[in-house]
Amino acid sequence: MQEDRRRDVLKRLSYIEGHVAGIRKMVEEDKYCVDILRQTYAVRKSLEKLERIVLEGHLRTCVPDGIKGNREEAVIQELVQLYDIAGNR
Amino acid sequence: MQEDRRRDVLKRLSYIEGHVAGIRKMVEEDKYCVDILRQTYAVRKSLEKLERIVLEGHLRTCVPDGIKGNREEAVIQELVQLYDIAGNR
Amino acid sequence: MQEDRRRDVLKRLSYIEGHVAGIRKMVEEDKYCVDILRQTYAVRKSLEKLERIVLEGHLRTCVPDGIKGNREEAVIQELVQLYDIAGNR
Amino acid sequence: MQEDRRRDVLKRLSYIEGHVAGIRKMVEEDKYCVDILRQTYAVRKSLEKLERIVLEGHLRTCVPDGIKGNREEAVIQELVQLYDIAGNR
Repeated sequence: MQEDRRRDVLKRLSYIEGHVAGIRKMVEEDKYCVDILRQTYAVRKSLEKLERIVLEGHLRTCVPDGIKGNREEAVIQELVQLYDIAGNR
Repeated sequence: MQEDRRRDVLKRLSYIEGHVAGIRKMVEEDKYCVDILRQTYAVRKSLEKLERIVLEGHLRTCVPDGIKGNREEAVIQELVQLYDIAGNR
Repeated sequence: MQEDRRRDVLKRLSYIEGHVAGIRKMVEEDKYCVDILRQTYAVRKSLEKLERIVLEGHLRTCVPDGIKGNREEAVIQELVQLYDIAGNR
Repeated sequence: MQEDRRRDVLKRLSYIEGHVAGIRKMVEEDKYCVDILRQTYAVRKSLEKLERIVLEGHLRTCVPDGIKGNREEAVIQELVQLYDIAGNR
């Protein structure tokens, strides 16, 4: 991953860790389920944003490099798999 | 939340925190993007499983109680909202 | 379903049928995959909008009626199932 | 699209059209909302399956061709966009 992208991703991961710790505290304090769900959805949204950033980096570097090098089949296979896993299929 | 459910949810949240910390370490060590994405997808799946457990608890307790009490409008409105937020719409 | 809601849903379903027929024509004419995918995503979004309308009607009528009547267990079970199916889980 | 893939996609699109027409009939006959939702979810699942097939074709042909030709920037930009649209982001 390019350095800028990596720093951005690390910052987002720290934020997500803190967010999950906050939700754990909400559950310990027996907060209202609906408020807990709103927070877990927000974490999922943050994760999706982060995945988009990692994927864009992958598409802009590893994918063209792999295809111009000799990893074409492997690179494409991985992209198909990522799409399947992302959709929980 | 019922006590059993709460303990289950807390265990899952601790696990998710550890998983996110593990992903942060992978990014620090500059692991392959595709392996990082596989792990973030797994975290998202764990979150969805956890949400299902919280939502099921909510549907089995707060929703019937609210509808039989006098919070019908509020309870239904919250469910519609949760559906919208869950789908990022 | 209430009459207004039903008419809205029927209009949306006709529109979706036409949209899918249009995509079929695109495939027959061998259009670019990316343009085809953009259209299938739009159809999926229209379906999600429609589901939200049907679900909202269900939450506002059948769910409170069922819970105040004696279908509480069945109604809640269905909502849990819908959530699972919606998420393809 | 390769001929086999195209024929498969066309068959799936005809099936989806018929499925949507069937749902329209269910709504006209005022069937139970939950049964209607089960069917719309099934259609969405069929669409996702179809998209996966179209995308796999795209990844296996247009993407490597574009990257080895001189459409690298455009091809990657499209993949990033598809990922965004697919997730309704």
